[in-house]
Amino acid sequence: MLGYTADKDAYLKRLRRIEGQVRGLQRMVENDEYCIDVLTQISAATKALQAVSLGLLDEHLKHCVAQAVAEGGEVAEEKIAEASAAITRLVRS
Amino acid sequence: MLGYTADKDAYLKRLRRIEGQVRGLQRMVENDEYCIDVLTQISAATKALQAVSLGLLDEHLKHCVAQAVAEGGEVAEEKIAEASAAITRLVRS
Amino acid sequence: MLGYTADKDAYLKRLRRIEGQVRGLQRMVENDEYCIDVLTQISAATKALQAVSLGLLDEHLKHCVAQAVAEGGEVAEEKIAEASAAITRLVRS
Amino acid sequence: MLGYTADKDAYLKRLRRIEGQVRGLQRMVENDEYCIDVLTQISAATKALQAVSLGLLDEHLKHCVAQAVAEGGEVAEEKIAEASAAITRLVRS
Repeated sequence: MLGYTADKDAYLKRLRRIEGQVRGLQRMVENDEYCIDVLTQISAATKALQAVSLGLLDEHLKHCVAQAVAEGGEVAEEKIAEASAAITRLVRS
Repeated sequence: MLGYTADKDAYLKRLRRIEGQVRGLQRMVENDEYCIDVLTQISAATKALQAVSLGLLDEHLKHCVAQAVAEGGEVAEEKIAEASAAITRLVRS
Repeated sequence: MLGYTADKDAYLKRLRRIEGQVRGLQRMVENDEYCIDVLTQISAATKALQAVSLGLLDEHLKHCVAQAVAEGGEVAEEKIAEASAAITRLVRS
Repeated sequence: MLGYTADKDAYLKRLRRIEGQVRGLQRMVENDEYCIDVLTQISAATKALQAVSLGLLDEHLKHCVAQAVAEGGEVAEEKIAEASAAITRLVRS
Protein backbone atom coordinates (compact mmCIF):
# COMPACT_ATOMS: atom_id res chain seq x y z
CA MET A 1 0.00 0.00 0.00
CA LEU A 2 1.27 3.43 -0.95
CA GLY A 3 1.38 6.35 1.41
CA TYR A 4 -1.33 8.23 -0.44
CA THR A 5 -3.70 5.34 -1.06
CA ALA A 6 -5.86 6.16 1.96
CA ASP A 7 -6.30 9.73 0.67
CA LYS A 8 -6.57 8.84 -2.98
CA ASP A 9 -9.98 10.41 -3.53
CA ALA A 10 -8.88 13.66 -1.93
CA TYR A 11 -5.79 13.82 -4.18
CA LEU A 12 -7.88 13.04 -7.28
CA LYS A 13 -10.33 15.80 -6.33
CA ARG A 14 -7.48 18.31 -5.92
CA LEU A 15 -5.91 17.30 -9.23
CA ARG A 16 -9.25 17.64 -11.03
CA ARG A 17 -9.58 21.14 -9.57
CA ILE A 18 -6.08 22.01 -10.82
CA GLU A 19 -7.05 20.64 -14.24
CA GLY A 20 -10.01 23.03 -14.13
CA GLN A 21 -7.68 25.90 -13.20
CA VAL A 22 -5.49 25.15 -16.25
CA ARG A 23 -8.55 25.05 -18.50
CA GLY A 24 -9.57 28.37 -16.94
CA LEU A 25 -6.15 29.75 -17.95
CA GLN A 26 -6.84 28.70 -21.52
CA ARG A 27 -10.15 30.60 -21.47
CA MET A 28 -8.40 33.70 -20.09
CA VAL A 29 -5.83 33.60 -22.90
CA GLU A 30 -8.58 32.81 -25.46
CA ASN A 31 -10.45 35.92 -24.25
CA ASP A 32 -7.33 38.13 -24.30
CA GLU A 33 -7.55 38.76 -20.60
CA TYR A 34 -4.94 41.06 -19.03
CA CYS A 35 -1.46 39.48 -18.66
CA ILE A 36 -1.20 40.22 -14.94
CA ASP A 37 -4.53 38.50 -14.25
CA VAL A 38 -3.38 35.42 -16.14
CA LEU A 39 -0.10 35.46 -14.18
CA THR A 40 -2.02 35.66 -10.90
CA GLN A 41 -4.02 32.57 -11.81
CA ILE A 42 -0.91 30.68 -12.88
CA SER A 43 0.65 31.40 -9.45
CA ALA A 44 -2.50 29.97 -7.85
CA ALA A 45 -2.32 26.77 -9.94
CA THR A 46 1.41 26.42 -9.19
CA LYS A 47 0.77 26.75 -5.45
CA ALA A 48 -1.99 24.12 -5.67
CA LEU A 49 0.37 21.70 -7.42
CA GLN A 50 3.07 22.44 -4.84
CA ALA A 51 0.63 21.65 -2.01
CA VAL A 52 -0.20 18.29 -3.61
CA SER A 53 3.54 17.54 -3.81
CA LEU A 54 4.12 18.40 -0.15
CA GLY A 55 1.19 16.18 0.87
CA LEU A 56 2.40 13.23 -1.18
CA LEU A 57 5.95 13.67 0.15
CA ASP A 58 4.73 13.71 3.75
CA GLU A 59 2.76 10.50 3.19
CA HIS A 60 5.73 8.93 1.40
CA LEU A 61 7.97 9.65 4.39
CA LYS A 62 5.37 8.27 6.82
CA HIS A 63 4.76 5.05 4.94
CA CYS A 64 7.22 4.02 2.24
CA VAL A 65 10.35 5.54 3.84
CA ALA A 66 9.37 4.51 7.37
CA GLN A 67 8.74 0.90 6.25
CA ALA A 68 12.10 0.77 4.45
CA VAL A 69 13.90 2.23 7.48
CA ALA A 70 12.25 -0.34 9.73
CA GLU A 71 13.63 -3.00 7.36
CA GLY A 72 17.05 -1.31 7.57
CA GLY A 73 20.18 -1.90 5.44
CA GLU A 74 20.46 -0.91 1.78
CA VAL A 75 16.69 -0.75 1.29
CA ALA A 76 16.51 2.07 3.84
CA GLU A 77 19.50 3.95 2.42
CA GLU A 78 18.11 3.80 -1.12
CA LYS A 79 14.64 4.93 -0.05
CA ILE A 80 16.03 7.94 1.84
CA ALA A 81 18.34 8.89 -1.04
CA GLU A 82 15.35 8.66 -3.39
CA ALA A 83 13.26 10.89 -1.09
CA SER A 84 16.10 13.44 -0.84
CA ALA A 85 16.35 13.57 -4.64
CA ALA A 86 12.59 14.17 -4.88
CA ILE A 87 12.86 16.97 -2.29
CA THR A 88 15.66 18.56 -4.33
CA ARG A 89 13.54 18.46 -7.51
CA LEU A 90 10.61 19.96 -5.60
CA VAL A 91 12.74 22.76 -4.12
CA ARG A 92 14.23 23.56 -7.53
CA SER A 93 10.98 23.43 -9.52
CA MET B 1 -3.24 44.70 -27.97
CA LEU B 2 -1.77 42.56 -25.18
CA GLY B 3 1.83 41.45 -25.04
CA TYR B 4 0.96 37.80 -25.62
CA THR B 5 -1.65 38.26 -28.32
CA ALA B 6 0.84 37.59 -31.13
CA ASP B 7 1.81 34.27 -29.48
CA LYS B 8 -1.67 33.33 -28.34
CA ASP B 9 -1.80 30.02 -30.17
CA ALA B 10 1.57 28.95 -28.76
CA TYR B 11 0.43 29.75 -25.21
CA LEU B 12 -2.85 27.90 -25.71
CA LYS B 13 -0.94 24.86 -27.01
CA ARG B 14 1.36 24.90 -23.98
CA LEU B 15 -1.56 25.25 -21.57
CA ARG B 16 -3.41 22.34 -23.25
CA ARG B 17 -0.25 20.23 -22.83
CA ILE B 18 -0.12 21.16 -19.13
CA GLU B 19 -3.81 20.24 -18.83
CA GLY B 20 -2.86 16.85 -20.29
CA GLN B 21 -0.02 16.54 -17.75
CA VAL B 22 -2.46 17.17 -14.89
CA ARG B 23 -4.87 14.56 -16.30
CA GLY B 24 -1.87 12.21 -16.53
CA LEU B 25 -1.24 12.83 -12.81
CA GLN B 26 -4.82 11.78 -12.09
CA ARG B 27 -4.29 8.52 -13.99
CA MET B 28 -1.07 7.86 -12.04
CA VAL B 29 -2.88 8.34 -8.71
CA GLU B 30 -5.85 6.31 -10.02
CA ASN B 31 -3.46 3.46 -10.85
CA ASP B 32 -1.62 3.67 -7.49
CA GLU B 33 1.64 4.55 -9.17
CA TYR B 34 4.70 5.03 -6.92
CA CYS B 35 4.70 8.34 -4.97
CA ILE B 36 8.14 9.42 -6.23
CA ASP B 37 7.07 8.97 -9.86
CA VAL B 38 3.97 11.11 -9.24
CA LEU B 39 6.17 13.75 -7.55
CA THR B 40 8.52 13.77 -10.53
CA GLN B 41 5.62 14.46 -12.91
CA ILE B 42 4.25 17.20 -10.66
CA SER B 43 7.67 18.93 -10.77
CA ALA B 44 7.54 18.74 -14.58
CA ALA B 45 4.04 20.31 -14.68
CA THR B 46 5.12 23.02 -12.23
CA LYS B 47 8.16 23.87 -14.37
CA ALA B 48 5.94 24.05 -17.48
CA LEU B 49 3.57 26.48 -15.73
CA GLN B 50 6.55 28.53 -14.52
CA ALA B 51 7.89 28.76 -18.08
CA VAL B 52 4.49 30.06 -19.30
CA SER B 53 4.59 32.69 -16.54
CA LEU B 54 8.10 33.83 -17.47
CA GLY B 55 7.07 34.10 -21.11
CA LEU B 56 3.94 36.14 -20.34
CA LEU B 57 5.93 38.39 -18.01
CA ASP B 58 8.57 39.05 -20.64
CA GLU B 59 5.90 39.99 -23.21
CA HIS B 60 4.12 42.12 -20.61
CA LEU B 61 7.32 44.09 -19.97
CA LYS B 62 7.96 44.49 -23.70
CA HIS B 63 4.49 45.72 -24.55
CA CYS B 64 2.20 46.83 -21.75
CA VAL B 65 4.93 48.20 -19.43
CA ALA B 66 6.96 49.73 -22.26
CA GLN B 67 3.85 51.50 -23.63
CA ALA B 68 2.96 52.84 -20.20
CA VAL B 69 6.54 54.02 -19.59
CA ALA B 70 6.56 55.76 -22.96
CA GLU B 71 3.37 57.54 -21.83
CA GLY B 72 5.13 58.42 -18.55
CA GLY B 73 3.67 59.84 -15.32
CA GLU B 74 1.41 57.89 -12.98
CA VAL B 75 0.42 55.39 -15.66
CA ALA B 76 4.04 54.26 -15.91
CA GLU B 77 4.55 54.09 -12.13
CA GLU B 78 1.40 52.04 -11.63
CA LYS B 79 2.26 49.63 -14.44
CA ILE B 80 5.79 49.02 -13.05
CA ALA B 81 4.46 48.57 -9.50
CA GLU B 82 1.92 46.07 -10.85
CA ALA B 83 4.67 44.15 -12.72
CA SER B 84 6.86 44.09 -9.59
CA ALA B 85 3.97 42.65 -7.55
CA ALA B 86 3.44 39.95 -10.18
CA ILE B 87 7.19 39.12 -10.09
CA THR B 88 7.01 38.82 -6.28
CA ARG B 89 4.04 36.41 -6.52
CA LEU B 90 5.90 34.39 -9.15
CA VAL B 91 9.08 34.21 -7.06
CA ARG B 92 7.13 33.17 -3.98
CA SER B 93 4.87 30.57 -5.65
CA MET C 1 22.40 57.01 -11.24
CA LEU C 2 21.31 53.47 -10.46
CA GLY C 3 17.87 52.55 -9.30
CA TYR C 4 19.04 51.59 -5.82
CA THR C 5 21.43 54.49 -5.22
CA ALA C 6 18.85 56.51 -3.27
CA ASP C 7 18.30 53.53 -0.92
CA LYS C 8 21.91 52.42 -0.77
CA ASP C 9 22.25 52.70 2.99
CA ALA C 10 19.09 50.66 3.55
CA TYR C 11 20.36 47.89 1.25
CA LEU C 12 23.78 47.89 2.94
CA LYS C 13 22.09 47.59 6.34
CA ARG C 14 19.98 44.65 5.17
CA LEU C 15 23.00 42.91 3.64
CA ARG C 16 25.01 43.38 6.86
CA ARG C 17 22.11 41.81 8.77
CA ILE C 18 22.10 38.85 6.37
CA GLU C 19 25.85 38.55 6.84
CA GLY C 20 25.17 38.35 10.58
CA GLN C 21 22.53 35.66 9.97
CA VAL C 22 25.07 33.57 8.03
CA ARG C 23 27.62 33.98 10.83
CA GLY C 24 24.88 32.90 13.21
CA LEU C 25 24.40 29.76 11.13
CA GLN C 26 28.10 29.01 11.54
CA ARG C 27 27.77 29.29 15.33
CA MET C 28 24.75 26.95 15.28
CA VAL C 29 26.70 24.33 13.33
CA GLU C 30 29.78 24.91 15.54
CA ASN C 31 27.61 24.23 18.61
CA ASP C 32 25.98 21.12 17.07
CA GLU C 33 22.54 22.69 17.20
CA TYR C 34 19.61 20.58 15.98
CA CYS C 35 19.40 20.21 12.18
CA ILE C 36 15.81 21.46 11.94
CA ASP C 37 16.69 24.66 13.84
CA VAL C 38 19.60 25.31 11.47
CA LEU C 39 17.28 24.68 8.49
CA THR C 40 14.75 27.15 9.89
CA GLN C 41 17.42 29.86 10.11
CA ILE C 42 18.66 29.12 6.58
CA SER C 43 15.10 29.62 5.28
CA ALA C 44 15.01 32.98 7.08
CA ALA C 45 18.33 34.07 5.49
CA THR C 46 17.15 32.90 2.06
CA LYS C 47 13.93 34.90 2.38
CA ALA C 48 15.91 37.99 3.42
CA LEU C 49 18.15 37.67 0.34
CA GLN C 50 15.07 37.16 -1.84
CA ALA C 51 13.49 40.33 -0.46
CA VAL C 52 16.65 42.30 -1.31
CA SER C 53 16.48 40.92 -4.85
CA LEU C 54 12.84 41.89 -5.28
CA GLY C 55 13.60 45.40 -4.03
CA LEU C 56 16.55 45.85 -6.37
CA LEU C 57 14.51 44.50 -9.29
CA ASP C 58 11.67 46.92 -8.60
CA GLU C 59 14.08 49.85 -8.53
CA HIS C 60 15.80 48.59 -11.66
CA LEU C 61 12.48 48.54 -13.51
CA LYS C 62 11.57 52.01 -12.24
CA HIS C 63 14.84 53.63 -13.21
CA CYS C 64 17.18 51.78 -15.54
CA VAL C 65 14.48 50.00 -17.61
CA ALA C 66 12.16 53.02 -17.64
CA GLN C 67 15.00 55.30 -18.86
CA ALA C 68 15.95 52.82 -21.59
CA VAL C 69 12.31 52.46 -22.68
CA ALA C 70 11.95 56.24 -22.83
CA GLU C 71 15.01 56.23 -25.11
CA GLY C 72 13.37 53.49 -27.18
CA GLY C 73 14.88 51.31 -29.93
CA GLU C 74 17.47 48.58 -29.30
CA VAL C 75 18.52 50.06 -25.96
CA ALA C 76 15.01 49.46 -24.62
CA GLU C 77 14.75 45.93 -26.03
CA GLU C 78 18.11 44.92 -24.58
CA LYS C 79 17.30 46.36 -21.19
CA ILE C 80 13.95 44.51 -21.01
CA ALA C 81 15.51 41.24 -22.19
CA GLU C 82 18.19 41.65 -19.51
CA ALA C 83 15.54 42.28 -16.82
CA SER C 84 13.57 39.23 -17.96
CA ALA C 85 16.68 37.05 -17.71
CA ALA C 86 17.31 38.34 -14.18
CA ILE C 87 13.68 37.55 -13.25
CA THR C 88 14.11 34.02 -14.61
CA ARG C 89 17.28 33.50 -12.52
CA LEU C 90 15.47 34.83 -9.46
CA VAL C 91 12.45 32.58 -9.99
CA ARG C 92 14.68 29.54 -10.49
CA SER C 93 17.07 30.19 -7.59
CA MET D 1 25.17 12.63 17.30
CA LEU D 2 23.53 14.83 14.70
CA GLY D 3 23.27 13.93 11.05
CA TYR D 4 25.68 16.66 9.96
CA THR D 5 28.28 16.21 12.71
CA ALA D 6 30.52 14.04 10.53
CA ASP D 7 30.55 16.77 7.84
CA LYS D 8 30.68 19.72 10.20
CA ASP D 9 33.89 21.17 8.81
CA ALA D 10 32.58 21.01 5.25
CA TYR D 11 29.37 22.83 6.25
CA LEU D 12 31.33 25.48 8.16
CA LYS D 13 33.57 26.02 5.13
CA ARG D 14 30.51 26.44 2.85
CA LEU D 15 28.84 28.85 5.28
CA ARG D 16 32.02 30.95 5.54
CA ARG D 17 32.10 31.11 1.75
CA ILE D 18 28.46 32.29 1.70
CA GLU D 19 29.35 34.89 4.34
CA GLY D 20 32.07 36.07 1.95
CA GLN D 21 29.53 36.23 -0.89
CA VAL D 22 27.25 38.44 1.21
CA ARG D 23 30.16 40.73 2.08
CA GLY D 24 30.92 40.80 -1.64
CA LEU D 25 27.35 41.98 -2.26
CA GLN D 26 27.93 44.81 0.18
CA ARG D 27 31.03 45.88 -1.75
CA MET D 28 29.08 45.78 -5.03
CA VAL D 29 26.35 48.03 -3.59
CA GLU D 30 29.00 50.25 -1.96
CA ASN D 31 30.66 50.67 -5.38
CA ASP D 32 27.34 51.35 -7.17
CA GLU D 33 27.72 48.29 -9.35
CA TYR D 34 24.99 47.60 -11.93
CA CYS D 35 21.71 46.26 -10.44
CA ILE D 36 21.61 43.19 -12.69
CA ASP D 37 25.14 42.16 -11.63
CA VAL D 38 24.16 42.47 -7.96
CA LEU D 39 21.02 40.40 -8.65
CA THR D 40 23.11 37.71 -10.35
CA GLN D 41 25.34 37.42 -7.27
CA ILE D 42 22.35 37.29 -4.94
CA SER D 43 20.96 34.37 -6.94
CA ALA D 44 24.32 32.61 -6.54
CA ALA D 45 24.31 33.14 -2.76
CA THR D 46 20.69 31.95 -2.53
CA LYS D 47 21.53 28.78 -4.47
CA ALA D 48 24.52 28.14 -2.18
CA LEU D 49 22.28 28.47 0.91
CA GLN D 50 19.71 26.18 -0.69
CA ALA D 51 22.37 23.53 -1.35
CA VAL D 52 23.42 23.65 2.32
CA SER D 53 19.76 23.15 3.31
CA LEU D 54 19.32 20.18 1.01
CA GLY D 55 22.51 18.60 2.39
CA LEU D 56 21.45 19.08 6.01
CA LEU D 57 17.97 17.73 5.24
CA ASP D 58 19.38 14.61 3.59
CA GLU D 59 21.62 13.94 6.62
CA HIS D 60 18.71 14.61 8.97
CA LEU D 61 16.60 12.01 7.18
CA LYS D 62 19.47 9.49 7.20
CA HIS D 63 20.27 9.86 10.88
CA CYS D 64 17.75 11.65 13.12
CA VAL D 65 14.59 10.54 11.26
CA ALA D 66 15.88 7.01 10.61
CA GLN D 67 16.78 6.55 14.32
CA ALA D 68 13.35 7.80 15.39
CA VAL D 69 11.59 5.55 12.89
CA ALA D 70 13.61 2.55 14.11
CA GLU D 71 12.35 3.43 17.62
CA GLY D 72 8.81 3.62 16.24
CA GLY D 73 5.63 5.01 17.86
CA GLU D 74 5.03 8.72 18.56
CA VAL D 75 8.74 9.57 18.39
CA ALA D 76 8.80 8.49 14.76
CA GLU D 77 5.57 10.28 13.84
CA GLU D 78 6.75 13.53 15.43
CA LYS D 79 10.15 13.36 13.76
CA ILE D 80 8.60 12.81 10.29
CA ALA D 81 6.03 15.58 10.82
CA GLU D 82 8.89 17.89 11.84
CA ALA D 83 10.89 16.95 8.71
CA SER D 84 7.84 17.54 6.50
CA ALA D 85 7.36 21.01 8.01
CA ALA D 86 11.02 21.82 7.35
CA ILE D 87 10.63 20.64 3.73
CA THR D 88 7.56 22.89 3.34
CA ARG D 89 9.51 25.91 4.65
CA LEU D 90 12.38 25.10 2.32
CA VAL D 91 10.09 24.74 -0.72
CA ARG D 92 8.33 28.01 0.10
CA SER D 93 11.45 30.07 0.88
